Amino acid sequence: MKATIPFVARTDDADRETWLEALRAAMPSFKIDAFETLNGEQRQAARVAIVADPDPADLGQLPNLEWIHSLWAGVERIVTELPVDGPKIVRLEDPQMARTMAEAVIAWTLYLHRDMPRYRRQQEARVWKMHDLPLPSQRTIGILGLGNLGRMAAGQLLDRQFTVCGWSRSGAGMDGVETFSGPDGLDRMLSKSDIVIVLVPLTDETRGLLDADRLSAMKEGASLINFARGPIVEATALLEQLDRGHLKHAVLDVFEQEPLPQESPFWSHPDVTVLPHISGPTNRTTASAIVAENLAAYFETGKLPEFVDRKRGY
Amino acid sequence: MKATIPFVARTDDADRETWLEALRAAMPSFKIDAFETLNGEQRQAARVAIVADPDPADLGQLPNLEWIHSLWAGVERIVTELPVDGPKIVRLEDPQMARTMAEAVIAWTLYLHRDMPRYRRQQEARVWKMHDLPLPSQRTIGILGLGNLGRMAAGQLLDRQFTVCGWSRSGAGMDGVETFSGPDGLDRMLSKSDIVIVLVPLTDETRGLLDADRLSAMKEGASLINFARGPIVEATALLEQLDRGHLKHAVLDVFEQEPLPQESPFWSHPDVTVLPHISGPTNRTTASAIVAENLAAYFETGKLPEFVDRKRGY
Repeated sequence: MKATIPFVARTDDADRETWLEALRAAMPSFKIDAFETLNGEQRQAARVAIVADPDPADLGQLPNLEWIHSLWAGVERIVTELPVDGPKIVRLEDPQMARTMAEAVIAWTLYLHRDMPRYRRQQEARVWKMHDLPLPSQRTIGILGLGNLGRMAAGQLLDRQFTVCGWSRSGAGMDGVETFSGPDGLDRMLSKSDIVIVLVPLTDETRGLLDADRLSAMKEGASLINFARGPIVEATALLEQLDRGHLKHAVLDVFEQEPLPQESPFWSHPDVTVLPHISGPTNRTTASAIVAENLAAYFETGKLPEFVDRKRGY
Repeated sequence: MKATIPFVARTDDADRETWLEALRAAMPSFKIDAFETLNGEQRQAARVAIVADPDPADLGQLPNLEWIHSLWAGVERIVTELPVDGPKIVRLEDPQMARTMAEAVIAWTLYLHRDMPRYRRQQEARVWKMHDLPLPSQRTIGILGLGNLGRMAAGQLLDRQFTVCGWSRSGAGMDGVETFSGPDGLDRMLSKSDIVIVLVPLTDETRGLLDADRLSAMKEGASLINFARGPIVEATALLEQLDRGHLKHAVLDVFEQEPLPQESPFWSHPDVTVLPHISGPTNRTTASAIVAENLAAYFETGKLPEFVDRKRGY
């Protein structure tokens, strides 16, 4: 008999159905069902669940879970909401997602490098005016976070001839990238970057990392891209630096509260590009294939994939 | 005594001065002066001039010119305005410009691929909504013109995993690129491309190449980027295809008349991005160095760089 794997997600019915289809197609040897449709016996039997932003109350009704496999790369919400002695948490590590995120880094770096927001404003005002274009080597891109994702993005920026520097907790180096670590290193990296790209995970250490002091330590006229998590950048301080013209533009894909509330000043700010969390969307096909492989290995050997270090937070 | 080289340009004083500075810095062994400041004897003596959109009347006052070196890559205006038995025309072939143009191809291809115009409209309406993102391999980019520039752009699109096809007069192939030629080939390329990028020079053959028939032969929902010359795409036909929704978006960097007239419907069209001819700007430093090298060779050996074939038009 096929093992039943609950799928636990806070989402709408259409999205849940689309996920179930993709997961079932990738794992014909398991019986994958929405948590809501399982009976008490099935809930008792479940040792592993596939989750996408799960309701902790739902997971509480699966008392024998050894681990859960998230379909998202960011798990800080689950980490906060689930008890420390709860099931182990495996986050999605999909090489395709890193590629998609690196693509977003290139896309929105070029958006800023080629002055698209300015030319957009000119079009609205029917103004025909060219502006000097620096060579990419004359632009320094500072990457906050040199994990898998940051390294892939850095490599692609180097390929495009940009000058790249980076900041990481460990201070691990990378060929062709000037690397900084520690609080002083962060200030130094910020002071020399024309575009700062936030790619660190949200942890106790990174919450509010770019506060008023740090944002004012950024280079005059620099721009910011946040593809990581909203609370890493202090929203009020960012608006202030944009308003006084110290910072030129912000591309924000993530926010303290998502969806971004209607009353947020970001929506209408002329120097802010608001994106609805689309820099690194999960690809259902490749994600399902990865989950399938991890589940198969677990049921064959009892071995779990690498799971989240609850202390470190990722 | 240093040879005097006239600099003939239809531009404003500030731009002329900036050019003279860059040119003089690159060629200390020549005396480079604005045409307007030369006396009759100097005008008689000139055998070569450096030009940027020159007034034909000015060039007519340099009767002994053997050749002119343009600071622009596009020379179709000079070709039209100068007599066929006039001085030979050398266009700027700056590898840096091809790199800058290829960068523009990547930048605005990603702009369309990542749905930036749509997310911009959503921001204006305060709408938070993600849209499915295809893999780059699921997007076919069709390049019209596979010269140096088209090939470099195609190579960089392949590096980013896009599916690339191309159309060229000669039908010369390229690894990894499905290549078409001839009128039927053009229609076939247009019918399978999600994004068509115009990179052919303007000649008698390419004027009006993308007319009403060709634009309606494009794939439903496709987008167009024109980085070449305005008259290659019929403006009225393009607006019609955008209005009826057959085409999704157009990025236009070039126009029949530049600057784009205030009354042009392109300025305010929701599905058009208007750029003020900035996809491949001349870099003054690298361009001056190339002109310096060509002039030095000419004065040493009497040999001209490759010049424009007046019949072919480029």
